[in-house]
Amino acid sequence: MAELKRLSLNTATVNQWSLKECIEGCVRHGVPAIDPWRDKLHELGVDTAAKMISDNGLEVSALCRGGMFTGLDDASRQVALDDNRRAVDEAVAIGAQCLVLVVGGLPDGSKDIGEARGQVRDAIGTLLDYSRSCNIPLAIEPLHPMFAADRACVNTLAQANDLCDELGDGVGVAVDAYHVWWDPDLAPEIARAKGRILGFHVCDWLVPTTDLLLDRGMMGDGVIDLPAMRQMVEAAGYHGLIEVEIFSAENWWKRDGDEVMQIVIERFDKVV
Amino acid sequence: MAELKRLSLNTATVNQWSLKECIEGCVRHGVPAIDPWRDKLHELGVDTAAKMISDNGLEVSALCRGGMFTGLDDASRQVALDDNRRAVDEAVAIGAQCLVLVVGGLPDGSKDIGEARGQVRDAIGTLLDYSRSCNIPLAIEPLHPMFAADRACVNTLAQANDLCDELGDGVGVAVDAYHVWWDPDLAPEIARAKGRILGFHVCDWLVPTTDLLLDRGMMGDGVIDLPAMRQMVEAAGYHGLIEVEIFSAENWWKRDGDEVMQIVIERFDKVV
Repeated sequence: MAELKRLSLNTATVNQWSLKECIEGCVRHGVPAIDPWRDKLHELGVDTAAKMISDNGLEVSALCRGGMFTGLDDASRQVALDDNRRAVDEAVAIGAQCLVLVVGGLPDGSKDIGEARGQVRDAIGTLLDYSRSCNIPLAIEPLHPMFAADRACVNTLAQANDLCDELGDGVGVAVDAYHVWWDPDLAPEIARAKGRILGFHVCDWLVPTTDLLLDRGMMGDGVIDLPAMRQMVEAAGYHGLIEVEIFSAENWWKRDGDEVMQIVIERFDKVV
Repeated sequence: MAELKRLSLNTATVNQWSLKECIEGCVRHGVPAIDPWRDKLHELGVDTAAKMISDNGLEVSALCRGGMFTGLDDASRQVALDDNRRAVDEAVAIGAQCLVLVVGGLPDGSKDIGEARGQVRDAIGTLLDYSRSCNIPLAIEPLHPMFAADRACVNTLAQANDLCDELGDGVGVAVDAYHVWWDPDLAPEIARAKGRILGFHVCDWLVPTTDLLLDRGMMGDGVIDLPAMRQMVEAAGYHGLIEVEIFSAENWWKRDGDEVMQIVIERFDKVV
């Protein structure tokens, strides 16, 4: 099973906490790393957050998130690119190991997912000029196909690997168990990602799932064979931090944050 | 756009109607074909339904559905196979052009989707001995990956095509726009299915989607480029019936059935 020293808290898991509370919670529970979402980061202030993370000796597995590149016109896509450059700057400021990209879905009113996918490729290609100069790797996170319309039109590891092949250095993939567990090509595509896996995220797929976005499960409460996937990722050379990222509006977000942290740690030890 | 003579009513679209009402509704609205779900078929009685469908000159695009092959033990899988043989008999009785297969997800408590996929292959292989002798083609319907755990572990056209390659004559695919629209390999896998496409189902993907199962949209209300997909299917040689299948607990199932039929026909003419 996974060792605690590899655990990183994605701050979405304890949405009820501010980033300050998340950092303090990690320290209190012995969690060595964190991945802050940008809204919480902005709330605390980037400089304050950077100092607090550093003073407490936390690693930063990633910054969540850049992306949302797709848009109906050049102007809106330029706004997105500018925001992504700021995200790269923030990743530098807090010492993040990479910037996670949720690439964006169909622009409003569009039914052309091929066009959206082309926009994503072009935007990452442009962003790479900047992110490479800042030494921030970009981690393309394929999202579950149920998010193809509204969040990310990159929906399989095969697509993410194809993008990496095309775009070259400075870009890799984030493997999130929730998004890819169902994929018949999971094993070969994780193997293909060797050398470019920048993150591994865990939670669980609940049966039934009552909400597309906000009903993710705690590891062990669903159907994903997490140890098998961890072994695939390790066989592909990834031995870095493992993020726990659980969106759970009706369950985990309503509990006491310290209880959530305790259970995250127990489950990480037992079922990841 | 698609011609009305190709329209088939999947009875799930007007869940508020019995099969008798669906048949009468098709006749009243000039819809030439139907695909009954088995629960409604059993309610009316297979013989009565067969006679009523035939007397009214309706075509039967398919019987919905067989499948659900996966199980924890031989006994439960045998029960499923026996039920599928009865489904083949019913398909014969009502003159269905094929039997749609929703193959089943993970057995309760299992996390081994590879094992489930193997069970599906073996079960279809066994069922084929019977279905071939009855001249009922089996239509494997890949379901959206969000149903991988609880409904179908065949989640892409590539998987369905692989199964067809392996299993030989008597088995093909049902292409349901809702389940496959997001697939980066949609075009090549539809082309690959040439000669084995047994059905084409339409509805739409709503943004937002509020329920995984029961929030499908009317054609034109979502993001799927249905004419593009119809053209792919036609380029692959399929010029048969097009089923409208809409699960919509909070919208279309609450309306007057005749209003639903009228809008189905309008949209079929305009946006499919």
